[in-house]
Amino acid sequence: MVVAKASSSPSHPLTNNVFPCSIIDAQKGDPLAFESYWKQMNDECTVVIKGWELMSYYSDLSNMCWFMLPELKDVIERIHHLVGNAVTKDRYIVVGNGSSQLFQASLFALSPLDVPDHPVNVVAAAPYYSEYKNVINILNSRMFQWGDDAAVYDKNEPYIEVVTSPNNPDGTLREPVVNSVAEGKLIHDLAYYWPQFTPITHEADDDVMLFTFSKCTGHAGSRIGWAIVKDIEVAKKMATFVQSSSMGVSKESQTRAAKIIGVVCDGYQNFKSSESELFFEYSKRLVKERWEKFREAVEQSMVFTVTKYPKAYCNFTNEISETYPSFAWLKCEGNEDGHNYLRKLNICSREGERFGADSKFVRVSMLGMDDDFNELVKRLSNVKIE
Amino acid sequence: MVVAKASSSPSHPLTNNVFPCSIIDAQKGDPLAFESYWKQMNDECTVVIKGWELMSYYSDLSNMCWFMLPELKDVIERIHHLVGNAVTKDRYIVVGNGSSQLFQASLFALSPLDVPDHPVNVVAAAPYYSEYKNVINILNSRMFQWGDDAAVYDKNEPYIEVVTSPNNPDGTLREPVVNSVAEGKLIHDLAYYWPQFTPITHEADDDVMLFTFSKCTGHAGSRIGWAIVKDIEVAKKMATFVQSSSMGVSKESQTRAAKIIGVVCDGYQNFKSSESELFFEYSKRLVKERWEKFREAVEQSMVFTVTKYPKAYCNFTNEISETYPSFAWLKCEGNEDGHNYLRKLNICSREGERFGADSKFVRVSMLGMDDDFNELVKRLSNVKIE
Repeated sequence: MVVAKASSSPSHPLTNNVFPCSIIDAQKGDPLAFESYWKQMNDECTVVIKGWELMSYYSDLSNMCWFMLPELKDVIERIHHLVGNAVTKDRYIVVGNGSSQLFQASLFALSPLDVPDHPVNVVAAAPYYSEYKNVINILNSRMFQWGDDAAVYDKNEPYIEVVTSPNNPDGTLREPVVNSVAEGKLIHDLAYYWPQFTPITHEADDDVMLFTFSKCTGHAGSRIGWAIVKDIEVAKKMATFVQSSSMGVSKESQTRAAKIIGVVCDGYQNFKSSESELFFEYSKRLVKERWEKFREAVEQSMVFTVTKYPKAYCNFTNEISETYPSFAWLKCEGNEDGHNYLRKLNICSREGERFGADSKFVRVSMLGMDDDFNELVKRLSNVKIE
Repeated sequence: MVVAKASSSPSHPLTNNVFPCSIIDAQKGDPLAFESYWKQMNDECTVVIKGWELMSYYSDLSNMCWFMLPELKDVIERIHHLVGNAVTKDRYIVVGNGSSQLFQASLFALSPLDVPDHPVNVVAAAPYYSEYKNVINILNSRMFQWGDDAAVYDKNEPYIEVVTSPNNPDGTLREPVVNSVAEGKLIHDLAYYWPQFTPITHEADDDVMLFTFSKCTGHAGSRIGWAIVKDIEVAKKMATFVQSSSMGVSKESQTRAAKIIGVVCDGYQNFKSSESELFFEYSKRLVKERWEKFREAVEQSMVFTVTKYPKAYCNFTNEISETYPSFAWLKCEGNEDGHNYLRKLNICSREGERFGADSKFVRVSMLGMDDDFNELVKRLSNVKIE
């Protein structure tokens, strides 16, 4: 994929003879790094679906989320119980086409219906996940509108605050920040609250919590997200939204997610000091090793800086550990624009402005394929202040 | 599923000793009738997906619909070419989570962006598919609003007309009906324009055409729909909508749809007077036989009437044939409410009012499981005017 060849490319801030002509796409959040784990699993995670199976729209007529396969619901409860990252007892689970759809569904469910001329403001502390704004703007709804940075929200109007923890793009652990007397509701986007990315310090028990298969195990192509919801009326509205938007969720993906999450759980349950590494151990080791290499390269370059995360005791791994986010949030020291700087190195990153931050900042994916990641580190370690 | 047992149920308009206590759900549009075809196919349609496969968000970076698997695009083009029901040459294909999501995506793509205070009116000739209204109302958008019956639309304001042909609920073949000087755009919902339901009289070549795997082969649980679009800018906006709403479409479902549609096409391509029936022959025979039984029962009862469809030459089957819709649109003669009448027979139907029609009308699914359908016919044939 990445072929580093000498070329007659124009001058750029590389200090040795590596003149790569290939572009590294570190802009996207495709979690391909975990593919290697699933490759060594042989047939354990294989799903086989016959032509006549899974044909109906319906999965479980006894559940208000009638399109959710019971076996998926079971493994979702099981993995949260195993990891200890979220309460599921006496909570309602709604499955969606990725957590993107459930984000919309939760906005729909939490927005007041009776004040059509006053859309509720949806806010998130900057830097915030770049897609929240796009999703809200594309819907152009009378019920909600993008309200920008939660940290400076001072309107005396109802709001919904999105709390992303660990945060995308910067990996920080978050709490609500709005300081307003107005009525506020919360959506917790906990996509990255898994032990490979951050210590599991508590069992989250928020009103609306969003999770996704994409970040839990790396299966982004399946488009499976789930919400854990306290209030049944909110859960029902969310299920209605998914019903109206897409008449449910792919059963093939649900079956596969149930299988793979089940295999992860089985691994821990049947663990008898086997030689093979379990999923969260493998993925944590991988992300940690990448971060160590990456930090070293960045520090060596002195062009960029990257946040240092506090350590905490992880209830799941029973050890003290740092946060190792799925993305690096780089700050370009000096006056240069971070995105432009990386462009000169043929590294494609996502601009800070898209996250409500300064152009000095850029987001770079830590979970690309090995070749891409190694080349990224190589290029970063070779840059010097001009 | 359906157990017809004598019971001490209260009086109702049955004339013999059948007192069924079970409820037949003929309300939903679950196309389970075709399951029998796929059951006899053995492993030909089976998909096997390994744990490490299909992990990326991305399918084809060279396509503006980057989340669509190239093999799905290929079979979509292939089946339309085979059946001759829609032009795909020089058209853009966008895949979605069912045609429901693509319906929303097309509204988004066709609505003018620059007149936020004047949402475009979305209309469809009554009786119209009951979900259009729900989908539009749930979004509560500034860009579009539900404008009701297209036949009486007389506002001098921009509109989008949804042309559903064959129509859901009544199976009629439709053309646009709005008679207005205002600027209008069209969405053609051709979910049922397949040879098992209606003669293929022409290759449809409309601006935005929606199709779905659910109705083509009966695989509703997969949530795969596709749009065939003339204008690349409209197609791009639709793809952007699917991206923002759900970050693409399940790859497991796409893989399976590609496999199954491919098998249907292969059957015709490799056909050497084999003894096994091909999919559209099988499904057409099944729907036709059901309609013949159903019509006989309804005519015998004299309580309900059902539309008679004109015959036409089908370019695909090379024979003259009627339309055999996926639903029966029944009119209860006399003054009775059709839905209430069927309720007394423990038949659950969808009320005419939900389709913008009179309460005398009801929609009944023709594609339930064999047992359900046979019991439905049995109950209908036994009713008499009281």
